[in-house]
Order: sequence, then C-alpha cells, then structure tokens
Amino acid sequence: MKIGFIGTGVMGTGIIENLLKNDADVTVYNRTKAHAQQVLDQGAKWVDSPRELAENSDLVLTMVGYPSDVEKIYFGDDGLFKAARQGQYFVDMTTSKPSLAKKIFDHGQKLGVHILDAPVSGGDVGAKNGTLTVMVGGEQADFEKLKPVFQQFSSSDTYFGPAGAGQNTKMANQIMIAGTMTGMTEMLVYAKKAGLDLPMVCQTLQSGAAENFSLGTYGPRILRDDYTPGFFAKHFLKDLRIALEEADEMNLDLPATKQAKQLYEQLVDDQKLGNDGTQALIKLWWH
Amino acid sequence: MKIGFIGTGVMGTGIIENLLKNDADVTVYNRTKAHAQQVLDQGAKWVDSPRELAENSDLVLTMVGYPSDVEKIYFGDDGLFKAARQGQYFVDMTTSKPSLAKKIFDHGQKLGVHILDAPVSGGDVGAKNGTLTVMVGGEQADFEKLKPVFQQFSSSDTYFGPAGAGQNTKMANQIMIAGTMTGMTEMLVYAKKAGLDLPMVCQTLQSGAAENFSLGTYGPRILRDDYTPGFFAKHFLKDLRIALEEADEMNLDLPATKQAKQLYEQLVDDQKLGNDGTQALIKLWWH
Repeated sequence: MKIGFIGTGVMGTGIIENLLKNDADVTVYNRTKAHAQQVLDQGAKWVDSPRELAENSDLVLTMVGYPSDVEKIYFGDDGLFKAARQGQYFVDMTTSKPSLAKKIFDHGQKLGVHILDAPVSGGDVGAKNGTLTVMVGGEQADFEKLKPVFQQFSSSDTYFGPAGAGQNTKMANQIMIAGTMTGMTEMLVYAKKAGLDLPMVCQTLQSGAAENFSLGTYGPRILRDDYTPGFFAKHFLKDLRIALEEADEMNLDLPATKQAKQLYEQLVDDQKLGNDGTQALIKLWWH
Repeated sequence: MKIGFIGTGVMGTGIIENLLKNDADVTVYNRTKAHAQQVLDQGAKWVDSPRELAENSDLVLTMVGYPSDVEKIYFGDDGLFKAARQGQYFVDMTTSKPSLAKKIFDHGQKLGVHILDAPVSGGDVGAKNGTLTVMVGGEQADFEKLKPVFQQFSSSDTYFGPAGAGQNTKMANQIMIAGTMTGMTEMLVYAKKAGLDLPMVCQTLQSGAAENFSLGTYGPRILRDDYTPGFFAKHFLKDLRIALEEADEMNLDLPATKQAKQLYEQLVDDQKLGNDGTQALIKLWWH
C-alpha cells in the first residue's frame, strides 16, 4: 500500500517515522519543504502538491494546522480531490470541524473515495512513541480496513460512528482538557501566592481526588520554566473555538469552556504566545 | 491517648471507625446525636458538648461542615477552648478558612494548646478505607507527634508549613477539582448532544491526555444516574467560596474557578440540589 502524508509538523513527523520504521512506502507533501527534511532523510519521498500525492497513493493521511488548511488540501486547485480516483482512501487526522469532516465525506462518496476523520490525542510524545489515541468517524468497514495502518503509530483506535464522530470525540477530549489546564493553572497560581512548596503540593494533589494527566505532565514543566510546546497554545485555542462553534450550533451553552477559551485568547491573541505550549497559560499570572 | 472527635458525618464516621478498629479510646460529640449512633454501636463513647469533650481528651479531632461551625465548636460558650488545658492537642480537619486556622492557632498558643489544621481529601471511600490524604499546617513537631494517629485513617500525610498551610493546600486541591468537574460535565454534555456513545468516550478519554480522577470516578456514576454524594455539592461550593475569598485577599483573579463557583451556585442555591454529590452539576443541562 502506497501511503501519502500531508503535514510534517511535530505530530506528522512522529507518525511518519513510525510508518517508515515498519518499512511503509511513504511519500510526503508539506507547505514548507524544509520542514519535511527530517523524514526525507529517513527514506520518505517528496511530491510538490496534494494533487500529485493523490495521483501516487492508495491512502492519503493528512495532519495539518487549521480547518482552512484542510479545506484547501482537499478542495483546492491543487487539492487531493482533483486527482482522486475510486477505491482510494483519504483520512484527515487534523483536529478540525465535524461539519468539514462531513463535507469531505459527502464529496468522497460522490467520487467513490473512502473518507475517514481520525483525529488523535497523545501529543508529541505519543506521536514519537507510537502510542497515540485515534478517534475515528466514517464507515466502519473503512476503519477496519485501515486499522493495521493506525496501529503502527497508536495504542488505542476506536470507531465512534458516522463522518464527524471522530472530530466530535476529539472536541469532547479538548473540552475535558480545558478543565484540567485552567484548573491546574489557577491551582498553581493560588498555591504559589499562598507561599506553599509547589513540588510538594503537586505531589500531594496527584495522590488524591485532584489527580490528572495535565498536572502530572505539565506541572513539572511549569515548575522548571519549560514552556516548549508538547501542544501549541495556538492550536488548542483553535480547538476550543471549533468546540464552542459546534456547541453553539447544537444550542449548548458551555460557560467553563468559554472561560477557558477567553484565557487562551489572552495568551495567544493579546500576548502573542501561541507558539508556546498550552502550559504557558500560567504566564497570564507569572510574568 | 484519649481521643475526642466532633462531627459524625460521612467523613467523620469513616475516620472514627478506622480509629476504633485500632482499639483507640474514642469519645464523640455531634450536633445531632442520632447521627453518631453508628459509631456509638461500635464502641465510641458520648459526651454532650465540645467543652465536655475537651475535658475528657488528650487530643480532639474536629470535622464539621462550615467555618461558622468550626468557630462555634472552638470559641463558643460550650466550646473546646472553654475547657482547654496546657499540652492538649486540637486538630481541625474540616475544610475551612486559612485565616480561621491561624486564629485558632494563635488562641491555642496563648493557652499552651497544640493546634494543627489538617484537612483531608479522598472522599467517603478514602475515609472508609483509611486511605485519606492529610494536608497539615501548624508546628512541625506537633505534626510528627500526631502522625501515628493520622496514619490510622490515611495513606498520605504531609506537613506544608505554619498554621493555615494545610487549609491553603486543600484550597489548591479544590481549585484543581473545580477544573476537572466543570471540564468533565461540559464534555459529557457536548458528547451526548453530538450523539456519541458515552461509555466509549469516557474510556477513550481516560486512556489519553484528558485522563483524570473525576472522570474515572464520577463519569460512571453519572452514566448510571447516580447522584448520591461522595462529596456534597453544598460543601464543594463552600470550599470554592473560601478559596475565592482567600484569592481575593491575595489580590488574585481566578476566572475559571469563579466560573465553577457560579455553576455550583446555580446547582445549590437556585436548584436546591446541594445535598446531591458534586457530579450532579450535570443536572444543570440534563433535566
């Protein structure tokens, strides 16, 4: 199976490296070619456009930044659909809009292309170690067919329902994380101001009912002033905006998630710190 | 060592039972005597007031509802301090105001009474199983002296600093939990409205970066419509109010915690559901 991959960012690079380790035949495209050099050095091939990638692949995986990028890669003049042929598989792993996932699926149906939405969680570490969690929407038969591919870079792959269900599950995931990130941040802000020993507070809280992955992973990074991105703050803000737009369309009010979005807007839009990791939220208090 | 205990609620009862299992000599007082019957049946003795309890104990542990109850039990006409004598130990395990912990400590100093603030986390299950986490403020020597008592009902006991430090650590704990509870609630609300399979969503999220204790413990309870209290919503609201008052006094703005408090106010004050567990927050959406 010839695999095409679009998007050689932190996540894409980790996934491609795991595919190459399994001797997969991988061809890549990226907006900035220089960012693909790492995987090209390890044996991936290069093409100059998504269209060319579709011409040369049985399966195309896409993992880019924003829904607007996804739209362009699939529907643009040099996009995947321009060269799509019956029986091909396109899988979008970008965290993107459920409604866009449905639009891509519907267009694929017309052309006889199998479409899945399959966003992931697990961050840079999960991509590198091949332990990502993959949340899939689309046709179940297509999911079963591609499961062996997903398993090369993931430790958990679950089918959630029709097109968009993968994206909706990822949105649920991000809503949960909005809670753990804001809670952890305000907890540390309070504890520091109260003069408490922060490593000891983190350790005690992790042994009880306040325990969570964000505190365990990002707490220690904050305490050593490490704001390098496991996950970019700007991408998390993008996710929260999608989640709240979708919620709005479903007539749901999610005030805590809205509050989290406002805090990340302060960090990304006002303070221009979107290229920091999500744990940089604490910089709103600790200057 | 003769131990006195005030407060035979869910938490107190669990703690007293663990003390009795270790053959401790325990005398109790509770505002409503009927609620003490369970521990009286197991060998605890009864007195009619905090004052009488102080007369009959070397160590008094208190675990009641609100800071106003704590104030009354320590400083009231029939309060502990009325019968306090040099060398005695009083330990408040109620989650209460750091400033009140300091006031009790200062008064104890004058009388030669050793005072600790030692709130716990771990809920009803932790109290029953003797696996609570105890967060202690006061004099370190007093903490060391009483550690063997704490260990009869806890799996983690940590000294955090001078009077009030235990309460401040507990406030940090509750701020963190405000994030996990609001995040989990809005996540489930979103996932249900999006038509996803909720048990499958919970399981997938718990295997990744969204993982947390609240989701693991209260997610399943919500899915089977179980709103019985591990921890009363009204008590959690009390804790968030204390945390935000303290934050205010330290000139800290904690918007996500404020949002959580507002949601719990809707649940407790407007909808009168304070005797439900904290997971009942979801009733604001699921009627």
